Amino acid sequence: MFDFTFHNPTKIIFGRNKEQEIGVELNAAGIKKVLFVHGRESIKRSGLYDRVTSSLRAEGITFHELAGVSPNPRLSHVAQGIALVRERPVDAVLAVGGGSVLDEAKAIAVGSRTDQNLWGFFLGKAEISAALPVYTVLTLAATGSEMNGNCVITNKETCQKYSISSPRIYPRVSILNPELTFSVPPDHTAYGAVDVITHVLEGYFTKQPSTRLQDRLVESIIKSVITTTGSILAVPTDYQARAEFMWAATLALNGLTPAGIGEYNFPSHMIEHALSALYDIPHGAGLAIVLPAWMKWYSRSRPEQFDRFARVLFNGKTGAEGIAALEDWFVTIKVPTRLGDVDIPAEAIGKIAENAAGLAGIWGMGDEYPASTIAEILEPAI
Amino acid sequence: MFDFTFHNPTKIIFGRNKEQEIGVELNAAGIKKVLFVHGRESIKRSGLYDRVTSSLRAEGITFHELAGVSPNPRLSHVAQGIALVRERPVDAVLAVGGGSVLDEAKAIAVGSRTDQNLWGFFLGKAEISAALPVYTVLTLAATGSEMNGNCVITNKETCQKYSISSPRIYPRVSILNPELTFSVPPDHTAYGAVDVITHVLEGYFTKQPSTRLQDRLVESIIKSVITTTGSILAVPTDYQARAEFMWAATLALNGLTPAGIGEYNFPSHMIEHALSALYDIPHGAGLAIVLPAWMKWYSRSRPEQFDRFARVLFNGKTGAEGIAALEDWFVTIKVPTRLGDVDIPAEAIGKIAENAAGLAGIWGMGDEYPASTIAEILEPAI
Repeated sequence: MFDFTFHNPTKIIFGRNKEQEIGVELNAAGIKKVLFVHGRESIKRSGLYDRVTSSLRAEGITFHELAGVSPNPRLSHVAQGIALVRERPVDAVLAVGGGSVLDEAKAIAVGSRTDQNLWGFFLGKAEISAALPVYTVLTLAATGSEMNGNCVITNKETCQKYSISSPRIYPRVSILNPELTFSVPPDHTAYGAVDVITHVLEGYFTKQPSTRLQDRLVESIIKSVITTTGSILAVPTDYQARAEFMWAATLALNGLTPAGIGEYNFPSHMIEHALSALYDIPHGAGLAIVLPAWMKWYSRSRPEQFDRFARVLFNGKTGAEGIAALEDWFVTIKVPTRLGDVDIPAEAIGKIAENAAGLAGIWGMGDEYPASTIAEILEPAI
Repeated sequence: MFDFTFHNPTKIIFGRNKEQEIGVELNAAGIKKVLFVHGRESIKRSGLYDRVTSSLRAEGITFHELAGVSPNPRLSHVAQGIALVRERPVDAVLAVGGGSVLDEAKAIAVGSRTDQNLWGFFLGKAEISAALPVYTVLTLAATGSEMNGNCVITNKETCQKYSISSPRIYPRVSILNPELTFSVPPDHTAYGAVDVITHVLEGYFTKQPSTRLQDRLVESIIKSVITTTGSILAVPTDYQARAEFMWAATLALNGLTPAGIGEYNFPSHMIEHALSALYDIPHGAGLAIVLPAWMKWYSRSRPEQFDRFARVLFNGKTGAEGIAALEDWFVTIKVPTRLGDVDIPAEAIGKIAENAAGLAGIWGMGDEYPASTIAEILEPAI
């Protein structure tokens, strides 16, 4: 075990119809006006929009809206939100949607409380010292953004998909109603599963050995994700499976599994961010391609941990067997595992590697992951 | 999965020498005066007292002290602390010690901010609406009090060992330095192990079936406790083992494992509280006697979960094998498993059962656990 600080103040309210409590939660915190951030039209079709706005009105909370958040949310759209808040100040930002909507709300919350260039925080040039309070109602289980201080935004001008991390942007309250994920289609359910598994495996493999409690927590989460993904793909309205999957996704990136494991990093996320910055593919699809490729390359450095992975999760004997079993499972749930599956040509590897190496520098992995190494890692993904 | 709210705002600072940061943490929160609560002389002998008071002085924080907290901390001693705070008001209560010291500090924090009779809260007669902030430096891993809103106090006049639970008494900051537990003797290390395992098994067995993620988290914690207890008993200064044990103990009762499991209860704790209220034995010793006895009785109601317990944790086939294996392990770590081992006569069962039944009523288990049932449960513990 290594020294750590764990402090996660987000309040989670989990269960059926819980989105109806958002007004009460905001009111209890003395919040009177919010910027209501959401994505495409789906929350209007499903009735969620009406339930949330009714809850706000019932508590006398006024709001104005920023709609149209896209997957891989854009800095330019974040800027619109910040301009809205400058025009008509609010007490908090309310995000209703998936990880993209939550991340955009967090970026707006930071941008509304600074005079500095927002992208400077993503480039690591300044420390975040303030943010508006963020509240969320989650509609897609995957990113863990509902219970952490992370936020990923894409700057299309510079082709950079970069992130910030700050205690200021932990949501104050996140409402998780598994029923809101019933309509998530099979492909995005599967992308979510890959995202969750990758979140916990990054630390599991890159940390120092012998923090067994954390290993077991990671393995618990992965077992739940594998089992429940199968159930959900069979029956999309399986409440128990959606619920277990949703909570597993939250625990996968809320600070629980890395607490005490010492230094670790996110190489698969780093490489994937280059893929989706350049090709705008779903994050989970990119990860399904990158993760097994990275594992094949990295398993030489940590054979014992890869053997453990194979043994505990797939009844396998060797790391190679474990990686193959994971990749087989990815095929079963119909996610892409090769660049060609998402129409990215083999010749693009150089460009992807250069882009990822830029992020590697910012994430403190520049020495371990120069562009040439990233290109080598991606070779088996052709 | 059942509906739940999870909100644990305690900040954990974990690692070597971290107690030296307590002054900075208090100062950052604007706290200028504290009541410093501790137990026997051991923190003076070990130098911990000096390190904590130096940290306070370095930040200009003044303090007065309440020493002499006992195991199974007493309401009468809590009253002394409340009187001290009334005489010389403070901004917070700082507990340095094990679970007893932390629990007494929490009770003082509540008692200092109410005009009502403090014991009324323990009897469930009133809701806690305020408390002084609580800060802790932990010296014994077992109770989980460092990261929850629970507090157990013994009223010697009425022979009641009762508890309160409130969001108001989550510690603001808890400092966990595994080195501070190096001096915990083998018997109390083993009692701690039993306490931690019981904390997670209560929910594991009494909840509704089929919340598998939570089952896995529980099993992860138990595996870590079993392994690390062996290492610690062999080498008391094994930092890695002490650290993993300490964090497992915190996770065992911080709300993580019961989140989503629906209704559950604490029958072994309920019965044990009667034992230690009447005989003042260590809590973990009492649990080692009660838990296997209760499991033998209860396993008829939940055979599948007991089979799972046996299979996952002890490579056993049946629930009975699992219970026997747990009891064998208790013998290995030299904790008592029969009432006679702690000099409680068989004839006392009636009195214990009556006392426990009183608590059963307050904890909402009165129908399931009348005195006659509790006496039946305790039969195999003779």
